[in-house]
Formats: sequence, C-alpha cells, structure tokens
Amino acid sequence: MQQVITFGEIMMRLSPPGFARFSQATNFNVTYGGGEANVAVSLAYFGIPAAHVTRFPDNDLGRAATALLRHHGLNTDFILYGGDRLGIYFLETGAVARPSKVVYDRANSSFAQLEPGMINWEEVLQSAQWFHWTGITPAISEGAAQSCLEAIRVANKLGITVSADINYRKNLWQYGKKAHEVMPELVAGCDIIVSSVGDAADILEITPAPGSPDKFVSVCQQIMERYPRLKKIVNTKRGSISASHNTLTGLLWNGNELLQTPTHDITPIIDRIGGGDAFMAGLIYGLITYQNDQQALDFAVAASALKHTIEGDANLVTVAEVEPVMHGDSSGRLSR
Amino acid sequence: MQQVITFGEIMMRLSPPGFARFSQATNFNVTYGGGEANVAVSLAYFGIPAAHVTRFPDNDLGRAATALLRHHGLNTDFILYGGDRLGIYFLETGAVARPSKVVYDRANSSFAQLEPGMINWEEVLQSAQWFHWTGITPAISEGAAQSCLEAIRVANKLGITVSADINYRKNLWQYGKKAHEVMPELVAGCDIIVSSVGDAADILEITPAPGSPDKFVSVCQQIMERYPRLKKIVNTKRGSISASHNTLTGLLWNGNELLQTPTHDITPIIDRIGGGDAFMAGLIYGLITYQNDQQALDFAVAASALKHTIEGDANLVTVAEVEPVMHGDSSGRLSR
Amino acid sequence: MQQVITFGEIMMRLSPPGFARFSQATNFNVTYGGGEANVAVSLAYFGIPAAHVTRFPDNDLGRAATALLRHHGLNTDFILYGGDRLGIYFLETGAVARPSKVVYDRANSSFAQLEPGMINWEEVLQSAQWFHWTGITPAISEGAAQSCLEAIRVANKLGITVSADINYRKNLWQYGKKAHEVMPELVAGCDIIVSSVGDAADILEITPAPGSPDKFVSVCQQIMERYPRLKKIVNTKRGSISASHNTLTGLLWNGNELLQTPTHDITPIIDRIGGGDAFMAGLIYGLITYQNDQQALDFAVAASALKHTIEGDANLVTVAEVEPVMHGDSSGRLSR
Amino acid sequence: MQQVITFGEIMMRLSPPGFARFSQATNFNVTYGGGEANVAVSLAYFGIPAAHVTRFPDNDLGRAATALLRHHGLNTDFILYGGDRLGIYFLETGAVARPSKVVYDRANSSFAQLEPGMINWEEVLQSAQWFHWTGITPAISEGAAQSCLEAIRVANKLGITVSADINYRKNLWQYGKKAHEVMPELVAGCDIIVSSVGDAADILEITPAPGSPDKFVSVCQQIMERYPRLKKIVNTKRGSISASHNTLTGLLWNGNELLQTPTHDITPIIDRIGGGDAFMAGLIYGLITYQNDQQALDFAVAASALKHTIEGDANLVTVAEVEPVMHGDSSGRLSR
Amino acid sequence: MQQVITFGEIMMRLSPPGFARFSQATNFNVTYGGGEANVAVSLAYFGIPAAHVTRFPDNDLGRAATALLRHHGLNTDFILYGGDRLGIYFLETGAVARPSKVVYDRANSSFAQLEPGMINWEEVLQSAQWFHWTGITPAISEGAAQSCLEAIRVANKLGITVSADINYRKNLWQYGKKAHEVMPELVAGCDIIVSSVGDAADILEITPAPGSPDKFVSVCQQIMERYPRLKKIVNTKRGSISASHNTLTGLLWNGNELLQTPTHDITPIIDRIGGGDAFMAGLIYGLITYQNDQQALDFAVAASALKHTIEGDANLVTVAEVEPVMHGDSSGRLSR
Amino acid sequence: MQQVITFGEIMMRLSPPGFARFSQATNFNVTYGGGEANVAVSLAYFGIPAAHVTRFPDNDLGRAATALLRHHGLNTDFILYGGDRLGIYFLETGAVARPSKVVYDRANSSFAQLEPGMINWEEVLQSAQWFHWTGITPAISEGAAQSCLEAIRVANKLGITVSADINYRKNLWQYGKKAHEVMPELVAGCDIIVSSVGDAADILEITPAPGSPDKFVSVCQQIMERYPRLKKIVNTKRGSISASHNTLTGLLWNGNELLQTPTHDITPIIDRIGGGDAFMAGLIYGLITYQNDQQALDFAVAASALKHTIEGDANLVTVAEVEPVMHGDSSGRLSR
Repeated sequence: MQQVITFGEIMMRLSPPGFARFSQATNFNVTYGGGEANVAVSLAYFGIPAAHVTRFPDNDLGRAATALLRHHGLNTDFILYGGDRLGIYFLETGAVARPSKVVYDRANSSFAQLEPGMINWEEVLQSAQWFHWTGITPAISEGAAQSCLEAIRVANKLGITVSADINYRKNLWQYGKKAHEVMPELVAGCDIIVSSVGDAADILEITPAPGSPDKFVSVCQQIMERYPRLKKIVNTKRGSISASHNTLTGLLWNGNELLQTPTHDITPIIDRIGGGDAFMAGLIYGLITYQNDQQALDFAVAASALKHTIEGDANLVTVAEVEPVMHGDSSGRLSR
Repeated sequence: MQQVITFGEIMMRLSPPGFARFSQATNFNVTYGGGEANVAVSLAYFGIPAAHVTRFPDNDLGRAATALLRHHGLNTDFILYGGDRLGIYFLETGAVARPSKVVYDRANSSFAQLEPGMINWEEVLQSAQWFHWTGITPAISEGAAQSCLEAIRVANKLGITVSADINYRKNLWQYGKKAHEVMPELVAGCDIIVSSVGDAADILEITPAPGSPDKFVSVCQQIMERYPRLKKIVNTKRGSISASHNTLTGLLWNGNELLQTPTHDITPIIDRIGGGDAFMAGLIYGLITYQNDQQALDFAVAASALKHTIEGDANLVTVAEVEPVMHGDSSGRLSR
Repeated sequence: MQQVITFGEIMMRLSPPGFARFSQATNFNVTYGGGEANVAVSLAYFGIPAAHVTRFPDNDLGRAATALLRHHGLNTDFILYGGDRLGIYFLETGAVARPSKVVYDRANSSFAQLEPGMINWEEVLQSAQWFHWTGITPAISEGAAQSCLEAIRVANKLGITVSADINYRKNLWQYGKKAHEVMPELVAGCDIIVSSVGDAADILEITPAPGSPDKFVSVCQQIMERYPRLKKIVNTKRGSISASHNTLTGLLWNGNELLQTPTHDITPIIDRIGGGDAFMAGLIYGLITYQNDQQALDFAVAASALKHTIEGDANLVTVAEVEPVMHGDSSGRLSR
Repeated sequence: MQQVITFGEIMMRLSPPGFARFSQATNFNVTYGGGEANVAVSLAYFGIPAAHVTRFPDNDLGRAATALLRHHGLNTDFILYGGDRLGIYFLETGAVARPSKVVYDRANSSFAQLEPGMINWEEVLQSAQWFHWTGITPAISEGAAQSCLEAIRVANKLGITVSADINYRKNLWQYGKKAHEVMPELVAGCDIIVSSVGDAADILEITPAPGSPDKFVSVCQQIMERYPRLKKIVNTKRGSISASHNTLTGLLWNGNELLQTPTHDITPIIDRIGGGDAFMAGLIYGLITYQNDQQALDFAVAASALKHTIEGDANLVTVAEVEPVMHGDSSGRLSR
Repeated sequence: MQQVITFGEIMMRLSPPGFARFSQATNFNVTYGGGEANVAVSLAYFGIPAAHVTRFPDNDLGRAATALLRHHGLNTDFILYGGDRLGIYFLETGAVARPSKVVYDRANSSFAQLEPGMINWEEVLQSAQWFHWTGITPAISEGAAQSCLEAIRVANKLGITVSADINYRKNLWQYGKKAHEVMPELVAGCDIIVSSVGDAADILEITPAPGSPDKFVSVCQQIMERYPRLKKIVNTKRGSISASHNTLTGLLWNGNELLQTPTHDITPIIDRIGGGDAFMAGLIYGLITYQNDQQALDFAVAASALKHTIEGDANLVTVAEVEPVMHGDSSGRLSR
Repeated sequence: MQQVITFGEIMMRLSPPGFARFSQATNFNVTYGGGEANVAVSLAYFGIPAAHVTRFPDNDLGRAATALLRHHGLNTDFILYGGDRLGIYFLETGAVARPSKVVYDRANSSFAQLEPGMINWEEVLQSAQWFHWTGITPAISEGAAQSCLEAIRVANKLGITVSADINYRKNLWQYGKKAHEVMPELVAGCDIIVSSVGDAADILEITPAPGSPDKFVSVCQQIMERYPRLKKIVNTKRGSISASHNTLTGLLWNGNELLQTPTHDITPIIDRIGGGDAFMAGLIYGLITYQNDQQALDFAVAASALKHTIEGDANLVTVAEVEPVMHGDSSGRLSR
C-alpha cells in the first residue's frame, strides 16, 4: 500500500507523573510527539504505511525522537538533521475543574529553522497516496510555511490527496505574518480540511451568513465556494464537562449534506492530548478503507474517543479495537 | 476454626503501570494470582483460615509466588513443587471504551502437568470445612481435571461443603475434551455453584425453558433437579457501562426463592480482575458466618464491589470494611 | 503586605502510591503537612505572605519538613527546634466505596511537647495582619493549648484578625481535658470561625433551637450571642457520593444573613486531604482581597474544589486558577 | 526439624531511594526489620524453621510487618498485638566517604511496652532447638529486658541452646539502668555470644589483660571464666575502607583455640544493614548443620559478605549460594 | 552499505530493579533481547545497516519486541509471526560475590517452533554482506538448527561472510541431539568464529594438543585444519574478580599469529548481559571498516568493555564512543 | 552573619534514571542547578546565609526553580523574572570507561537576555560579605558579562570579598567576543580565583615560564603580578581513573607558598556534577570560618569529595559531615 506522508514539528513532551504540578515534580515522563506525527503513528497502528517528515537537531535528543517514531512503526527515512535544538513542551495533567497546562519552549527549533528547498518533496511524495499537514506548521516560521507550500504544490502536481487540520493557535504566528495572510494559499491546495467555525473566522476570515440555520454548514458552503479543490470539511464538537469528562461528536460536510456521529461520553479521561490528531488519523484511515463518508466519520470519532484512554500523544490502537466502539459497543468488556 | 481449601492454578501477572499499552511499557508490575487462590486470600483477610493447593516449578519464581501467598496469610503447606514452568498472564488495563486486555502464556505450566495421585487429598482435606474449585481447573489439562475430581470425591466422603465457580472459558479446553463431557461429574459433587445462564448452557447444556418468566430461575430449577446435591446457585449481574464504570447485582436461588441484592455502582474501577473471586469469597464467608442466604449474598456483592478498588487480583479487605457497604453505606467517607 | 501567621503541628505524611493498601506497599510517597500549614501554603500561592509557627525535632526530618515549607514559599523563621520526634500519619487512598484510611502516629511529637512561653508571640505577630489556628492544636496537649491561647491573647491585643477552624477530632483530646472545657476561651478570641452544627455541639455545647427552620443559622445565632467578637461563622457542606465523588457547598452566616455558594461536583477526586484547609485559605484570601463576603465565600469553595485535584496536603493553585472556577467555569478546558 | 526462636523489636525501615538525602526524598522505600528477626529470616532461607517473637500495634502497620515476615517464611504465630505504635527507623544510604545515616523513632513502641508475663515462653519454646536474642532488647525498656530474661530462663530449663549478639548501643539504654547492671545476668544464660573487645568492656566491664598477646583472646578467656555456660565467643572484624568498601573476617574462640576465616573484600556495598545479623544466622546454621566450628565460622562470614549485596535488612540467600563463597569462589560468575 | 543479517531467538527479559531478588520484586524492568539481535542492534548504532531474522507470536508481545528492535534501528521486515509464545528469561542482577541469576522460560517458543522452509533465505540474504548466527540457535530445536543450516548454505552460495559465536550452553540441547552431532556441519560454513578452548571441546570435540605452549593456539590450529573455510578464530578472556568487577582481553588467531589486546578493567559493572554480543558486533564492525585484524580486535574489546556500562542486552554506543577507549582512553572524562 | 551573594544562570537539569542512555529513557529526573547557585546552596547547608541572583522566565518552570532554591535554604529575593525561557541541560550518567554526557539547550535563556542595569547591585550587595561569580557567566552573553562587571565594581566599592571560578568553556563564548577580551577586566576585581594552568592560558593568556619547576606556581606568580588585588589562586587536580573512580587534590597559592591537601580517592562516584562548585563553597566557608588557608583548603577538598556521593548538582552536606573527612576519616562508618 502507498504511504501517507505527514509533515510537521515534533517536540519532546515532559510531564510530571500523575496529577503532580510542575513545582512538585522530581521527575518528568518523557515522550515525543507532534500533531502531524501523531496522525502518522496512528495510521501505522491501523496498518497504513506512514512516513513523517520533520527536522531534528543532530544530537542524542533528535535521535531519541527518531527512535520513538520508528518504535511506533513510522518510516523515518525523510527526517532531516541539523539546526539548533529540539522544541519542548511541558505538560501538567489536570483533573475535574483544573485544566491541563502546557508551557511551550519551542522557539528556534531545528524545525522552525527549516528553509525552502531543504526537503526534496519530489522524492518524498513520489510513492505516496496522501499528504497531511496542520495549521501549526505555517504558524511556526516563514521557512516552515514555505516548506509546507512546496509540499502541497508537489502533492497537487502528483495528484496526491491533501488534508489539513487548519487549527488556529493564537500564541504561535510570531514571525511577522498573520494566519489569514499565509493560510489561504495553503488551504487552496487541500482536498479535505478539519476546521471549526472559529478556525474559519480566524484563518480564512469566513463567518456564518447571518441567520443561517446551521453556522457550520454556512461556513462550509462559503469555504467550498472559495476553495473549489475542497471536497470535505470536517469538525469535532467537544463538550467539556470537566477536565476529566468530555463528550465528542463528529461532523462532516461533503458539499451536499451534513453527516453527524453519535456522541461519545468519555470519563475519566486518561490523556486528552492528541485527541484531534487521532480523529484525523481515523478519518484518513476511514476514507481510504471504507470509501463511505459516514463510516469514515464514525470510525474517526470512535478512534478519537479511544485516544483519550491512551497515555502519550499518539493513538496506539488498532482497527480491531476501534471498530466495536464505532459500532456502538463502548462497554469496555474484558475478553479472555 | 477449620480451614477452607482452594485448588487451582496460580499465574504470574505482569501488567504495564497505569494505563500504558504493552508496546509502551518499560516495566511491568508483578504479582501472582489465580481464581481460586484469590478466594483463599480474601477469606484469610476475613479471618477464615485458608490453604491453597497448587503446583509450582521448583525455582525462584515458584518460591516468589508462594511467598506472596504467605504474605497474604495463606497456609502454603500443601503446595507441590515440580514441573516445567509457572504460567503467566499479561494484563493491560483499559479505561472508558477501551477494554482491559489479557495475553495468556500458561501452556505447559507445572499445574497443567499435574497427574492424578500427586496430591494427597485425604491429608489436605482432613481438617477442612470447605473445598472450593472453579471451571478453569478442569479446562487446563486432563490431569488437572482428574485431580479436581479426586478432591471432590474425598470432600464428599468427608462431608465437607464443596463450592465451585463453574465459569466457562472458551479459549481454554484445548486438551481434547469438551467442557460438557468433563464438568457434569464434577458439578454433581457440589453443594453450591456460581453459574450464569450462559455458563449453564455451555457447560451443562441446560437452557431456560421456553417462555419461562425468569431465565435464571428456570435454569436453576433444571440444574437442581439434575444435581440433587446442589443447594444454592448463585450469580452476579454485571452492567458494563464502560471499562471504568460497572454495576453489580447478586442473585441466589436457594431452591425455593430468588434472592437479589441492591445494585452497586462502581466508578472509577481501579482493578476489575478478581471481582468474581471476591464475590465467591464473600459468599463463603457469609454462608459460614451469617447462616442467612440474604446476608451472605449482600456481603458477597459488597465485597466484590470493594474488590474493584483494590490493585491486584485478590480482595485485600476486612469484614469491618465490607459490612458498612453491605449495609448501604458506600459514601467512602474518611474516618480519622 | 503584612503576613498571615498560622500555628499548628506538621506531620510527615506517608502514603502508598496509587490505591495500594498498606500491606502491598514497598514504597511510600512522603510529604509534610498539617491543617494550619496547609492554609499558609495556599495563601503563599495566592500571593499573601505567610509564616507558619510550629516545633520540629532538631534532626534531618525536621529540617526536611522545613525545606518543604520553604519550597512552597512560607516564611519559616519562627519554627522552633527541639523535642523528641516528628509526628507521622500514614494515609491509604481509597476509591469508590472504599474510604481513605489514616493511621496516626503523632503522640509525643515535638509540637505536643510545646510549653507555654516557648514561643515569643509578641515578636511573631508584630508585623502580622491575621492569625489562624484550628481545633486540632488544643486537642494535642495542654502545652499546645496554652501556647494557642497565648497567641490569641497577643493577637487580640495587637488588633490582628483571628480565625479558627474549630473542627472536633474525637480521637485526639487524650491529655485529660475535654474539648468543651478548653475551647470556649479560645473561640472567644476569634473573629471568624469555621464550624459545623456537629462541631458546635461537641465543642461549644450549642445545639439548634428546637423547631428552628435552619439548624446552622440557629446554632450561629447562639454562638454569636455568646462570643460577641465573632463576626462570621462559616461552613462547608460535603456530599459524599463515594470516596471518588463528592459535592461541596459553602455557607457563611455574617450575623444578618446566610450566604450560600453554588454546589461544586468533584469527580474523580485525586486527593481529598486538605480540602477544608484550602477552603479556609480561600476564605482568608477572599476576605482580605474582595472585602465582600459572598465573593470571599465563592472563592473559598472554588479553591477547595480545586484542592481535590492536587496531590498532597496543600492547595498549590494560584488566584488566576481559582477565579474562573469561582465564576462558574469548571470545564477544565486546556488553553495553549 | 525443630524451630529456632528469635526475640526482638521489629521496626519499619524508611529509606530514600538510591543515595538521596532525606531532604531530597519524595518517596521512601519501606520494609520491616530488626536484628533478631533478620536472623530468623535468614535461617528460613537456609531451610531452618524459624519463628520470631515480637509485639506489634494492632493496626494496619503491625499487620503489614507480620505479612512481610510471613512472606519471608517465618512462623508468626507467637507475635503479640497491642500497645501504641510500631517503631520506625529512617535510613539514608551513604557512599564512599559519606556514611549511611540512621534516625531512630522507636520510643514508646509496642515492643518497648512489653511487660513480664505477657509472653508464654513455655509454649513458645516448647518445640524449639535454639533461642536467639541481642543486646538491643534489654536496652529498650525494663519490660523488654525482663521478658528476655524470662525467655532465657525457660530456654535454660528446657536445655535449648541460647545465643546472643550482645552488641552495645550507647544511645539506647535510656530507661534508667546501665548495660552492665542488666546484661551479665542475661549473658550468664547463654551458650554462644557475639562480642567485640569493645562490647565486652562496655557491657561486661571486662578488658584485655595488660600485655596479652591477643586482646580478643584475653577478653574471651576472662568472659568464659566468669560465665561457665558459654562455649563459644565469636566476633567479626570489619575493615572500613569506605562506606562502599569493607572487608570482613570472622573470629571464634572455642575455649581452646582462636579460629579465623579468610578476609572477604566487599565492593561496592549494596546494603550494609543486617550484616551482623546475617553472620549470626550463618553461624547458627553452620553450628546446627556442620557441627564443626571452622566450617560454621566460614559459612557465617561468607553469608555476611553476601548480605552486603542484598537490599533490605535480611539476608535473602540460600545455602547453595553461600557455600561457593564459603569455599573461596567469590567470582560472581553467572551460570546459565 | 549492504546489510548485516543476524538470526536467532529474541526473548522478553524481565528483571527486578536494582539488585532486588525475585522474591522482593513488585515490578520488573522489561526489555527484549537475544544474542544475535544484540549484535545487530550494536551494528545499527555503529552505522552498519542490520536486519534481524526471528519468529514471534502474532500477539501484542511479539509486536512490542519488534517495536523495540525498530526503536534501536533494525530492519524488521524479515520477522515471521506465528507459533505459540515469546520466550522469556528472568534476570536477577548480582553484585560482588553474588552472581547474577537467570531463570529461562523459553521452551515452546515461536522461534523454537521454526520449521525448515519457513524463511525465504534467498530473499533475506539477497542484498546482505554478512550473516551472523550463534550456537544457541541450533541448541533450541531441530527446526531452528535446520533453518540455520539453510541460511549458512545460502550465504555460502552467495559468497556472504558467515560468522558465529559457537558458545556452548549445556542446559539447552534438549531436543535429542548433541552439540557435536549438529554443530560441525554449521561451523564448516563459517569464515569467522568466536570459540573458547572449552567450547571447542564441547562442540567440536577438539582439545589442545598435549604439551602445546598455548592451548588456544593449539585448538585454533586443529579447528582451521578441519574447517578450511575458517579464516579467523576469536575469543575473549574474562577475568571474574567479582560480579561487579571483571577484566576483558581479546584474542584472535588469524591462521598465522595470535593477536591480543590490552586488558580492560571494568568496575563497577552496570549490566554484564550481552558483553559477548557487543564484542562480536565490534569485531564485525572492525573487520568491515578497518580491514586490519588488530584494530578490529581492539575495537571489539573496547566495545565489549563499554557494553558493561549499558543497561539492557544491547550495546547502545557509537563508534565515536568506542574509539577513544580502543585507543587507551578509559578515563571517562566528561566533555562539555 | 552577612550574606554571600552568588550570581549566575540556573538551568533545568534533566537526566535519565540510573545509567540509562537518552534513547532508552521514558522518564527524566528533574532538578535545577548552576555553578554559582550550587556554591550558594552548599554554603546554606554549611550555615552561611546565601542569596542567589539570577533571572528566570515568569512561568511555572521559573517558579519551580525558585522553589527548589528556597527548599535548599537560599534567599531568593533578588531573582528577576522575565525573558523567554529557562535554560536546560540534559545529563546522561556514565560509568567506568563511558563518560557522562551533557547536551546543552541554554541559548536565549532569560539569563542570557540580561541587560546592564537590570539588577540593582547596590541593593543586592548592601549587606553582603562576599560576592562569587564564575567564568561561565561572561561567556553566555554580552549582557551577562556586563551585569557581572557591574556587580564586581559595586562589590569592590563596598569592600566585599570577590571570588571567581574562572573556568573556560570553549563551547560557550558564542556572542562574538573572546574570553581573553572580556575576562581580564573581571578578574582584576577579584580577591580569590580558582584557575587551572589551562584556564590561565585560555582566559588570561598566561603560560608557565619555560623551565619553571612548578607550572601552576609559575602561572600563579604571573597572574598575581598582573592582578594585584588577587590574594589567593586555587586549583584542584582531578585524577580520572574512570568515570566511576576519580582522585582529588587541592592546591592553593597564597603569594608565598603552595599549600596542598592529601589526595582523596572517590569510588564509586554517585554524581560528579558540581564537584568544583562544592570545592568553591568549601573554600569560601573555610576562609570565612577558619581564617587559615590550609584548613580552608582541606575543608574544600573534603567537601568536594563528599559532593561526588550526592545526587544532583549541589552539595547537600553539613559542616559536621565534612569535618571528619577533612581530618582524614573517610571510613564511611555508620554511627547509630
């Protein structure tokens, strides 16, 4: 089967064990993850060959990050080494009314120091079936944004499906450009995007038509009009009852109708990080495998729900584990 | 007080800490347990002297398993040493919609290599008041099944109460015999069994009479007719809301009427393994102590509910801890 | 800003990790806490300078306890060193229907061996704005009770606000005096107390007037009549659904009206110890900062609710974390 | 085989992991041990049935200590429950030039509160072959000293071998009596003692004759003259090169000649606690088994050397592991 | 660069942390390793592409083992899935005079159940430059021995260098054949072997000529005469001062002269497992890279010495780390 | 007593537990340290009041670092908050021939972003007796170098003793200036420096006079001539037998004679980081307390030797622990 290629920054994740606060911690759990790589790892667990493209410093930490990606089954042949440092994020796990807390330390990373032309996208995408990126990458640096644009152009040329989770992170976008100056050109090369109503406003400057019966549909219609390559716009509605208890529903606009999934109830949440990436991976798997939007969407939300039970950034579950949940069995019954 | 004797295989249990998956684990928690030994340990915590009969390899692992049984107060004088290996099971703890997962590695264990005549049941049961076994033992090997039958015969001869949790594990029974070929003779020697409607069908080939108002009662009536020594048939109804949230209700048919307990709500589950064994231990304690079926049943379900809050296979709670729950106080209020 | 001074015993807290029982534990988590010091630590995290007065043995354990208080931002200049030992309490964490369990080993502590005159209260309280004590201190020993009385007298003389959580611990009070013989004189020096209806009966021998429409109000009215310095009586109602799930509501009688907060739903509880101390710290912060009883009470209950998500005795949260919860946002939503 | 009976206090041992100092520790390893019980555990690993007599508080900690003794194979039937608390000692592990450090918190323990007559020594010693005590017990409290004397008298009456490690701990002996007022009567009932030249001076007020060629022999001769029941006096010479590197040599005076062992070189030391107890256990095993003083002494020193490689207080090694070392093979070669 | 192919069983390794004994352990460190795979991992760290051929059960444990091999940089494309179980070995780490201890539980593993023809050696070895096996494989089962012979024949046909560490493990060889019946045919296909004088006797029935000045040389000469394909015979001399302190010297007979390395002093040993495999990997790297026997041997012994400082089975060091040690700098000086 | 003021960067230190390599680690031990702060912490443990001046980011990590300094007894009142990030260093612990390994990630730290004028040195040094800095600070950034110069000038004006460990780190000094351009002006303000012969060459461009009988003395004489304020030049000679075994000797040139200490043998090393800082702290303590150079030097080397047994960066030992070692007792004998 042809590879899915994902592209984006990977950070070292350092988190106090259990529910300890930073000031209490005498040790940190360490793993490595990033929105796009999380998608790739999940796909690898689903049996879809996946390669991640990123840039690491040429030191023991960059190599440790590569080792973990390999551990989880990714092709790491396209990773570049160079630049100054590995980005880091510190994660404190919340509970009940106390939110999890993230401290980013990602400036000047080897990935942010990417320059156009560094990655040979023709070679990377040569045998790929799908290219996935997120709105985080163009927010990191001019070079990362341009590298992403290069990739999309090559993918379009090669007829490879392009997907993006365009999510808007206000605190990134520090290099002098605004999201709405950079993103439209990138979105224009996509076949499928994940976008909330808020993301559409922040990134694409598209807001629901006044009086529209469904804000999401209204926004989707306008986006599709402006970006004709787009075939599907997808979203998850997350109900935040507490840091330990969320609900999740999936939505997909395919140009004609709004598909929706049942709502999954998730309590207690084990690790909420990467829930959206797990959704994306489920969607890609579903669209490749089922070729049926409703099934793909159901699979994606079930996968995302399961991610909340997995420690770390990535969704280490198999298709055989997602399918019962997708079909409504969330009893968690032990089989011997 | 006279001893309760339990008989069955004990395995090393290896589980990733927290909710980690096998592929993430760099260390495993290790303990030792088995359905019947779990009953004995729980009885020891209830103050009932209990001895477990099993067979371990004559190596450091067998001795470590014995040490843990002694730790928890069991008489280990009747344990045999010999044979090739200690059975192992690997347990991954699930949450929410992700079930816990068990990988068994128990073939060719020292216990499975038991042969008739190895255990001197006359000596073991000499000063006992109760003998307990489960449907796992006869499923393991011909020798284990025959040893179990020997024990039941001696117990019957000595007038010792015999109980069994007959539960059916489809993936065992690999040695060439079917459950329904082996089990009836063993059940015939019992005074009390735990059996669901499904177990009765799989093991005893007894199904509810068509149109019967209560399937469990119908099955119980037929079983009792066929096995006149049986005085009580017991069961638990488990409601599986998720891997983290179950409900539990106890049922007991005493030949005349169906007793039932209130339903216990258990969330979040800490460790679900051994819930049925804790129920059995509670029932044995209750029947010995209260000599009142309803109280025994109420105690058994309360004990089982508490087991779900205890790490490991065995229910390390005292009578003083079970009784408030049995009487309806599940407030978990801290007393200083 | 002037300091808040707290006074009371600090114990080493030893707890098996996770939900392990004492007999399973091969290691204990260790921290140091006490009802009054917990208040001071929380205030320090709220930005209020706080000093704790206590007595430790002059050994490595006393110094380790001091180090932890300093770690959490307390002024430890007034701590005395001497006496025989550091009090200890062992804590086993419960879940669902299994309560947490405490084994105290605090007799003959350096604090219990306090003698009147040992602490120079004039110096300690010289630059203070508030003095806080609890009903635990006078229960520990005659010397501790007398030291507390000394402090209250000096505080009254200096015009410093005095608060107390008068809570009654039946198992303390072993030195030959009864709570109701000792406490009234101490309560008479207070401006604000936390007291339940039960505490009022046990400690002050005040019970609700027969037929009074609200028992708490009835008790408050009688207390205020008898102790005219008192301006506010406060309480929390804790709903114990299980050891893992509590609700919390705050009540405050200001002499004229009964203020009440919304009810907070807390599940799953991470660490219930110190919930009342967190409430007290929140109340002190709120009364100092907002100078509005309702806001102070709302802040106090929100702070207490958050404490249940923090490992250890003390509430390591900031004002910026409490305020959203106080204003009704308990969604626990992660902000990046 | 008949039991060896040991008698003495058992404390909870709390130690920071690795080489951490008390002020750095956020968790403590926990185990339970005591000089005499360590002897019994070691004997149990050597296959000699052993029972330990002590007194624990009737709480979860006392029961946890009992569980560990059972775990390691001891008969715990003679343990008494009652009194106020379990003694504790805190141990910080040193290295190189930094000594390990012990903070004792053992005052007012259930054991120290022993009273004469509490233990039915006739019953305890009825089927015993050996009784062992140490100089710690009579140092703890008058009651403990008297209980020990009771035991020795019964043992003498029953013709049971009595051994003692009389070691002098200056910081104990707080109850108003001096070692040399109490110990001689107890030593008079012994068949075998472990004593250094220093112990003999402190406890028995016996010092080497001026100009004697060997101080230890001189002291032994005087002791034996004064205490005619004594048949052997034993000692270990410990060379302290550093906290991580010791040497060990055994000496035994049998009334006629001074036996000596080769010197064992121990580096790096894993856990030095209990080295003397392991020696004592080895000696008892050796004297029972080999009935040859030199072999017994060689076995004892080899056992003690191995103890320094075992974590915790007790020497968890088998005879099969000691014998090669006793015979000069300390290569530590892995056998597969 | 062309791949090195290694072939052999991989076991789960379970070891108590630190120096704990099995009976003390409540958790085990888990990793996966085997003599031949350890060689491959080390080569991957040296920058030599390496693929390991083995057979795992088709379950989560087999996949976890594969993940670790990928983590460490191996090509895992040729691994087969099937059969009953993953072999396990339990390792207790010794110190000083206490040897490390291994309990094997490897019978009936998926690897032992290999049958001739299962592995397509033509495909596996197609692009390889080197094939490595050890004497463990033919000792496991008839099928494993035959698979190994198949591989050697294909390798010989393709002109690929074949190396073997022929080491003799008496406790294996349980399937009815003796080492000397099976091994000669396999050794005949080798270019390079590691063999001690003892191995040569046990496996090849070759003993030093009486009166020969150097036993190893005498044996080498006879072996080379009998197996003309052999070009080099290599060995390490291990001095076992204690379990914590070894010395290491390398020897190589190239048909003409005996090369020898300086002796490396290793204290304290962190993890002795895999020392021989690290030597083999170093030798293969050295022979490929330096094309100079003395340098290759020096590199091999330096690599092996470093392995003793690495936790786990495999030698996770780079060429840049080995070379200083190879050139005599074992100062372990920190460079910043 | 007046404070010692130290000034310098503090980094988060992240290290795999035990001897694990970065690629093996799933968690990191976390602490916070820096060359100058380590001196201050050690002085605090010696009972000398000490304040550290640094700059942290205004986030949870900066506050956690402050908490640890407070924990260890420092005055943290002069710490500034602001700037982008906390510097980090990753430390892998070596053994035997494998050196420990450090990966720095300290660029763009809040400290490196210091600007002249940010710190009010008049206020900081107002009540100080001593100011200490190191050669790391001026190497970090122009702003840090200038801040250091400001401090030295104020200290000189106030007549406060100034000391420096001028050590040269080639890999720092990235901001465009060379060490020998910046350092001389700073050294000119010092009373005491630590410098090796190599440091003198790299930093001060002073080399031993050809043919001088003692290179260190020759260098000292030249330095003192050029920098007349200097009264003492100190150094340690480290013998690197292996990463686990070092020796340590102290040297002090006081203008007239070369003092030297006995050589300390350190094996096995627990944590080598901060050995030089511990020496410096010992020297400052010694010079303040003993007012005798030889005693000060002996104390300093003994303190440094002990540091190698302490986990983390700072030397958590007391004067009572250093003095026996200083007087030649390095037996590590446990006292009870």
